[in-house]
Amino acid sequence: MNEPESRNLTWHPEAIEPGARRRLLGQKGCVVWLTGLSGSGKSTIARATEKMLIEAGHAAYVLDGDNLRHGLNGDLGFEPKDRQENIRRVGEVAALFADAGLIALVSLISPYARDRRRARQAAGAGRFLEVFVDADLATCEERDPKGLYRRARAGEIAGFTGIDAPYEAPESPDLVLHSAEQSVEQGAREIVRELSRRGLLEAPPAGEEVR
Amino acid sequence: MNEPESRNLTWHPEAIEPGARRRLLGQKGCVVWLTGLSGSGKSTIARATEKMLIEAGHAAYVLDGDNLRHGLNGDLGFEPKDRQENIRRVGEVAALFADAGLIALVSLISPYARDRRRARQAAGAGRFLEVFVDADLATCEERDPKGLYRRARAGEIAGFTGIDAPYEAPESPDLVLHSAEQSVEQGAREIVRELSRRGLLEAPPAGEEVR
Repeated sequence: MNEPESRNLTWHPEAIEPGARRRLLGQKGCVVWLTGLSGSGKSTIARATEKMLIEAGHAAYVLDGDNLRHGLNGDLGFEPKDRQENIRRVGEVAALFADAGLIALVSLISPYARDRRRARQAAGAGRFLEVFVDADLATCEERDPKGLYRRARAGEIAGFTGIDAPYEAPESPDLVLHSAEQSVEQGAREIVRELSRRGLLEAPPAGEEVR
Repeated sequence: MNEPESRNLTWHPEAIEPGARRRLLGQKGCVVWLTGLSGSGKSTIARATEKMLIEAGHAAYVLDGDNLRHGLNGDLGFEPKDRQENIRRVGEVAALFADAGLIALVSLISPYARDRRRARQAAGAGRFLEVFVDADLATCEERDPKGLYRRARAGEIAGFTGIDAPYEAPESPDLVLHSAEQSVEQGAREIVRELSRRGLLEAPPAGEEVR
């Protein structure tokens, strides 16, 4: 390691061995992408899952679409172009989290299949779980936790998903949660179970080649 | 936890206790921001530090300005406005990583004090280390690992930091590395030592109130 000074910059540390992060954290970094109507329960389920995972010793983190609009995506509005860019950035950031070895729990309406497909591509194969938080519009509208449906019906918000903008339900989601019939805790447990079933909550056996 | 169904959405899991992530990962999430001229050795030192930290059991991750331009910041060019936005986003993402409990190692020329100050604010007090990778222009230009200085001198790149755009050296950096006189390994060791000195590489004592 005592390189001559003139070669300082040519000393490149070996890349981090692919399994190192996974062994360190005892899990495989991945993206859990919760999509669904406003009021379907995405954020609440994401936070419950995060808590459950952390209590079980797993490094997880919620990337909440609403919260990110205060920081990273604070420059974006709600025009279709801006909503698409919002989703693109969250997808890229989630992929970085997964690459770093974390379980990124994304909570974002993300109504278009195309945008979700891009997020899946950013994360990479075997690292992306599309979770459809399926609650019918009537239920979501009755809940209306942020009063947004009321405003959309009153014409104060245009292009609101489910009212005057479409929601493209996932055609083959990795998991479907029926939040009108399930408790938040049940939803979170299903996600944890699915992660476990896919072997994402364990370190690889010593010596095994992993990515 | 067996809430009546009608109250599903009103069940909010308690927030994650502030010390939980820190205890889980045995460290305090933070941002190590390496600033300096092109060719000063930022990326190489960041990667060496990442490797050193991971081998010591710490969750660390390099956010490399160049690499992020392929994904998250792929929509940005090199105009001053775009460079500023590039730095803003990296700062926001690094802050998310720190919030998630990781040590984010950022490698970015970030020539303006104002942009670095914003990144520090995004991360929050006590969570941001400005590391000035100080190498004189002549050294960087001689190294010219990407051939960029040559192109800037030939007039093929305009607004290149150090040639026809300013570099505002940090006035009170948290650490200065002299990459012309130090090996990459020495630089990485200094960063790890500084993180350790600040107590960022340990879990809080049980029961202690932490953020």
